[in-house]
Amino acid sequence: MAEMDIRLDYHYMSPEAVGAAAGISRESLAALEEPLRNVQQLIQERQSANSDPLGFLDLPYQPVTEISRLEKIADSLAALGDRHIVLGIGGSYLGAKAVIDALTDPFRNERSRRERQGRPRIAFEGNNLDPAAMQALLSLLPTEQPDDLDRDFTLNVISKSGTTLETALAFRILRQRMLQVYGPTYAKRIVATTDAKRGLLYQQAVSENFEHLVIPDDVGGRFSVLTPVGLLPAAVAGVDISGLLAGARRLAERMRQLAPLQNPAYLYAALQYLSARGGRNISVMVSWGKALEGVAMWYDQLCAESLGKEGGGRIPISAVNTRDLHARGQQLQQGPRNAVITNLAIDRHPDDLAVPCDEGNSDQLNYVAGKTLGQILQRAREATLYAYARDGRPSLTIHLPELNAFTLGQLFYLLEVATLVEGHLCRINPLDQPGVEDYKSFMFGLLGRPDKAHYLKEFAERPAADPAFVI
Amino acid sequence: MAEMDIRLDYHYMSPEAVGAAAGISRESLAALEEPLRNVQQLIQERQSANSDPLGFLDLPYQPVTEISRLEKIADSLAALGDRHIVLGIGGSYLGAKAVIDALTDPFRNERSRRERQGRPRIAFEGNNLDPAAMQALLSLLPTEQPDDLDRDFTLNVISKSGTTLETALAFRILRQRMLQVYGPTYAKRIVATTDAKRGLLYQQAVSENFEHLVIPDDVGGRFSVLTPVGLLPAAVAGVDISGLLAGARRLAERMRQLAPLQNPAYLYAALQYLSARGGRNISVMVSWGKALEGVAMWYDQLCAESLGKEGGGRIPISAVNTRDLHARGQQLQQGPRNAVITNLAIDRHPDDLAVPCDEGNSDQLNYVAGKTLGQILQRAREATLYAYARDGRPSLTIHLPELNAFTLGQLFYLLEVATLVEGHLCRINPLDQPGVEDYKSFMFGLLGRPDKAHYLKEFAERPAADPAFVI
Repeated sequence: MAEMDIRLDYHYMSPEAVGAAAGISRESLAALEEPLRNVQQLIQERQSANSDPLGFLDLPYQPVTEISRLEKIADSLAALGDRHIVLGIGGSYLGAKAVIDALTDPFRNERSRRERQGRPRIAFEGNNLDPAAMQALLSLLPTEQPDDLDRDFTLNVISKSGTTLETALAFRILRQRMLQVYGPTYAKRIVATTDAKRGLLYQQAVSENFEHLVIPDDVGGRFSVLTPVGLLPAAVAGVDISGLLAGARRLAERMRQLAPLQNPAYLYAALQYLSARGGRNISVMVSWGKALEGVAMWYDQLCAESLGKEGGGRIPISAVNTRDLHARGQQLQQGPRNAVITNLAIDRHPDDLAVPCDEGNSDQLNYVAGKTLGQILQRAREATLYAYARDGRPSLTIHLPELNAFTLGQLFYLLEVATLVEGHLCRINPLDQPGVEDYKSFMFGLLGRPDKAHYLKEFAERPAADPAFVI
Repeated sequence: MAEMDIRLDYHYMSPEAVGAAAGISRESLAALEEPLRNVQQLIQERQSANSDPLGFLDLPYQPVTEISRLEKIADSLAALGDRHIVLGIGGSYLGAKAVIDALTDPFRNERSRRERQGRPRIAFEGNNLDPAAMQALLSLLPTEQPDDLDRDFTLNVISKSGTTLETALAFRILRQRMLQVYGPTYAKRIVATTDAKRGLLYQQAVSENFEHLVIPDDVGGRFSVLTPVGLLPAAVAGVDISGLLAGARRLAERMRQLAPLQNPAYLYAALQYLSARGGRNISVMVSWGKALEGVAMWYDQLCAESLGKEGGGRIPISAVNTRDLHARGQQLQQGPRNAVITNLAIDRHPDDLAVPCDEGNSDQLNYVAGKTLGQILQRAREATLYAYARDGRPSLTIHLPELNAFTLGQLFYLLEVATLVEGHLCRINPLDQPGVEDYKSFMFGLLGRPDKAHYLKEFAERPAADPAFVI
């Protein structure tokens, strides 16, 4: 199993590689050893307390029966229709999308049901308030009961409270379509992923008899990818969800043995913390190859919501290389010296592809003929990181030996634990998101929700905008 | 036509709205009037010079015959196959993708040819070195001549020099597949978009008799969306490319009449320049709704490559709201005070969708029944920008009266001109990208390209990495 362990390579963070001004010295790392031990202890202690939403730490140890149940539900959804719609936003969207994008075929929705081995096409909605996108989705769906499984559809609505506006509105619209198409039997096509015993969506699930999956009370939205929130959509798409959990478990067990500065999650947190304290508060996560873009976007939320508060916090940016070497690469090479680059690298590609030889060599690429795309991608990464380092620009790399459910499960768990640790180092609470409420209060006020009338009043009484400021 | 003019609303940049520390005072704007007039003159003067690659300014005035020719080529590609592959990276990718994502159906590739009115499915490649993605694309394509237009495919390879590694490798691989499938007649299925008379791809086009479209010498890659680079893929997908140019022309003509601080491109540049000088060097471009995400990603390149050099430059981030209010929204509300938010807003949605009433009201959303999604999205935007402003966080908004080719053409042109102007204000050359060469030199060296051997030597002789820095 050790050959499938993910690794952290941070030699391009060392003063020897990037210079004293940009590097993280051994002394400053060593000085964190004690604080990290304290964090470790804090995290261990909470395991007997109940107040903190730290349940994500235990998710790798979910009972096998729970996983089998999710797989059965996924199979029955697949048997009911070839299009599955997942409604959710934020933590109820980004994790599922990251898993599916990483581990399933990028053209899956364009393929026949047979080529997909019977796994449905997946569409994500409820993550915006976009009329054009919703109309496009509605136009894909039947308006009366089809005689063809290919046109049948099923739905998973994911919301802890049921009051998240984007998701609840999409659910209202699609539930009506479903009733129109399937009549009273529609309920068997709907899964509600929500609180165990509270909230509007929970009540709907009970009264309408939807299948009900539980978001645990002690797991925050952005830490929920290894709950049914992420696992059911992944299972519907055919992902090996036991493998995801086995990977997370493997890392959890490794971490238990390791000193803080040998523990990849703690070390990652320490490096980011020290870099940010030294003025590098732009934090670019680069997927080398396309598959891990969704993970980088999932981490955008994890990092921004956990650490971006009280006027501080690293600013996450997600990127895909080599694509973005032709976009933001220029800036990372020669722009302000305020970034740290975290690379996600896949070391082996079982289905790699060799560059063919071309007799005419009209493109003059025969010098790489016989090399594989995976090898060339690796060389591009090495060249890029070296070019950054020699200009004093640091980076670190998380290596996945291969991309599969087992390594992806490790990656999620590593970044979640690291975020928790970094929050402690920054002396902020990484588990709340008070700033998210501000716009919501005004939005609900502007939309006329009775309990938010005072927000509407404040907005209505704001100083008038100067018309000269609109051209 | 004026009712389709895009507008710039910057009242949330004023000191009255966001406070003196964050706001841009009228005095500091007025002080830029003279420098902006000088920039205006510089730009006008170059129109008689030849050395600067400023040809993008004239693209709105391309002859109608040229546009008709592109449309004819697009139609003949559509008639030859139902899958069209566009190979390109950076400026040879992001513009075409932005147009197609903004103006065509998001589920286009999942629909039947009839529902697509005969316009082919589009796939983008040549924008990475990803073995899994390339294998997935290859597995979509036939291995022998199909008897079915649905499975036939065509190709557009876009590269100024022909030596861009990602694109050239993808072209080598797909050209071989095409030869295998179609034999000697394959050439009629290939368009090469490249230099007028130089370079490897140009030579291939001539010797193999591919259709040849020209990237003008005086237009840089990231300014090329209104050349065949962006226009042919758009036309293949069924976009009204004359409308794009008409929009750009409309803005060019409006701008000619306007004083710098009444000119949206100049004013946008001035506001961003002053904000960055005041320490706000994070520059978030938010698409409200899904359609303009591609434009924000296209602007990432435009901004990063044009302005990110000599240790300076705003750092662009692209976002989609309301989606990302549940991700980076927390940070923009309460994180560091170093960001300016540029919003892309669509004011009217001709195909808007009203929230239906629900008798049971089990989701308690009847208070918004009858409102449209477009109206609710607008309220969410107003609430968010007000919540930011009252905490002293500035934003500005570019309004598109509707989303169509005419308004999108204006938007591209506005942002291109603004970037040029901002570069002049920053006293850097916004038209080069010297930092992009660094990683390329090492990459080609590492791959064994003979003329880059000294880069390989430097890399090989770099200090050995400390093995303790890999855990």
